[in-house]
Amino acid sequence: MNHRTALINAVDRATAQQCRAMLDAKTKPRNSLGQLEELACVLAGIRRAAIPNLGKSAIVVMAADHGVAVNGVSAYPPEVTAQMVSNFARGGAAINALARHAGAELIVVDMGVANPVAIGTGVRECRVGKGTRDLSQGPAMSGAQLEQAIAVGFLLAVELAEAGVGVVGLGEMGIGNTTSAAALAAAYTGASVESVVGPGTGIDDAARVRKRAIVERALAVNATAFGEPHHILAALGGFEIAGLVGVILGAAHRGLVVLCDGFITGAAALAAVAIRPEALAYLVAAHRSHEPGHRIVLQTLKLEPLLDLSLRLGEGTGAALALPLLEASVRIVAEMATFESAGVSDTGRGVA
Amino acid sequence: MNHRTALINAVDRATAQQCRAMLDAKTKPRNSLGQLEELACVLAGIRRAAIPNLGKSAIVVMAADHGVAVNGVSAYPPEVTAQMVSNFARGGAAINALARHAGAELIVVDMGVANPVAIGTGVRECRVGKGTRDLSQGPAMSGAQLEQAIAVGFLLAVELAEAGVGVVGLGEMGIGNTTSAAALAAAYTGASVESVVGPGTGIDDAARVRKRAIVERALAVNATAFGEPHHILAALGGFEIAGLVGVILGAAHRGLVVLCDGFITGAAALAAVAIRPEALAYLVAAHRSHEPGHRIVLQTLKLEPLLDLSLRLGEGTGAALALPLLEASVRIVAEMATFESAGVSDTGRGVA
Repeated sequence: MNHRTALINAVDRATAQQCRAMLDAKTKPRNSLGQLEELACVLAGIRRAAIPNLGKSAIVVMAADHGVAVNGVSAYPPEVTAQMVSNFARGGAAINALARHAGAELIVVDMGVANPVAIGTGVRECRVGKGTRDLSQGPAMSGAQLEQAIAVGFLLAVELAEAGVGVVGLGEMGIGNTTSAAALAAAYTGASVESVVGPGTGIDDAARVRKRAIVERALAVNATAFGEPHHILAALGGFEIAGLVGVILGAAHRGLVVLCDGFITGAAALAAVAIRPEALAYLVAAHRSHEPGHRIVLQTLKLEPLLDLSLRLGEGTGAALALPLLEASVRIVAEMATFESAGVSDTGRGVA
Repeated sequence: MNHRTALINAVDRATAQQCRAMLDAKTKPRNSLGQLEELACVLAGIRRAAIPNLGKSAIVVMAADHGVAVNGVSAYPPEVTAQMVSNFARGGAAINALARHAGAELIVVDMGVANPVAIGTGVRECRVGKGTRDLSQGPAMSGAQLEQAIAVGFLLAVELAEAGVGVVGLGEMGIGNTTSAAALAAAYTGASVESVVGPGTGIDDAARVRKRAIVERALAVNATAFGEPHHILAALGGFEIAGLVGVILGAAHRGLVVLCDGFITGAAALAAVAIRPEALAYLVAAHRSHEPGHRIVLQTLKLEPLLDLSLRLGEGTGAALALPLLEASVRIVAEMATFESAGVSDTGRGVA
């Protein structure tokens, strides 16, 4: 299985159109459920059925440390990555509460936390290294590390597909990873560094100036290495971000819906689509993050988010919150009566 | 029980503040769950507990016909009101599918449909009349009819509170009722008729010009009757809108969360708050409707909606879609670990 050559089918336009036709016959003015109807059609195309079967839901949270964190680009010290992975393992983080609420299985993957959590916690150990190198000094990871990280994610998506999962939410944890995501967003979209560097988990103005300078330096230092899309990811990414790229590509290969979360998973989406443009059609944007660069990511990918609640936590929390909307959109298609079956006058259809 | 004198307590600021303090101690940067955290605090104030007990959820859909519909202000003929009530009774409408998805009990009330649905369908018969009079010719209802409609809703809210319901979503059905809602919005907010008259369920431009003229005439014809807030409601409202005003006032009286839906329930909220300003603190806005007047309603009430999905169906569909977010916000407060309990370094708290 190779993420470069694995087949990614186009989504099924016929089933998406059948879904639209079914929605137009339901007892409501056409398009009166707005974005929920568009969502149902997208899901129908991805799942290749007019009434899409979403199967089980999973949220994959990948965690890793970032060498760039030594530069004081985060409000939190690097050891918080490992502490939060332990917190995920014990069920006490926001994503634990929200995944339970959404009825989604939570899969936590250590992609390269500096201090690995103890064995037996339920965290999957898929460590590529002890965190990336400082991307402002040179490439964050080697080509071999990149391939390893993508493969972990790709194979995980395949495993989930075989277990009956139809929707994969993306989540991440890694102190310093908004810096990596900002560098990736600037490199993949051409947006200015200023426009993509935000407060992250809550830095002050002085730290934000520092963070911008770090991203500028990272782009300058690595510029000669930007030959192909995956080179950018190796130079500026994180192990968890590269792992999520693999999840996206594996999910697209197996026809799963990919529910993106915030800015960091958005950077992973940019990278995945740069590497395999066919993957774009499998992406659904759960929300628009408070982090300013996320708006640029969504515009570049032409994804309209479902929620806009000023979230800026990551972990997959936005994905978990949006999951019920995916299920709701399918219930509309599956359960509503038609004008004909319900004996409701349909004179309004043509003008809606 | 009288909706004019029934006690409406202020919400509990102490429990709202306790909820905020609990959220600030959780393992996440402060406010990083944005509007979800604000929502939890609002619920804590309404339900008078730092970890609010939302109890069971119900969605009340009130239906009635509108005399103004004879003027061709809707894309649908008036008989669709009764047809859709039958559809609700058989479980085939959008709100049936979405209420089931949200785990909410659906209560359909005939407040005055011209052709009543058959007995034995599960629809509650609380008919105030065979639809309102044409509000462009004079008052839509008498003072006695207004009192009757409000009493129906008020007593229903009390009944729900006693059955363990903690959250009431509002829904409506009534061909012509965006015209009534537009007139109410203009009268209560002072906004221009042009700004509050939208496409409704899908009228064309010519019909929209006609609808504006009807609303202008309704405001002019009834202007001398606008002595007190409830006079405006009697002159321009519908039986289902007045019933929802009663639900809001009864819910506020009993300390229930009121989850508003779109433009028509928003007009009911404007009326309820004009009559009893203390009721405002019990309102949560589920979504921002595609109907342009709804934006003005939300701004006037200073309510920030949870969803913005271009919905324009009504029936309580937006309320049903937002319900999982209310539950999610409570789970964050109830289930997350604190920095202290999880042993996570908390240096970032102060700067978030």
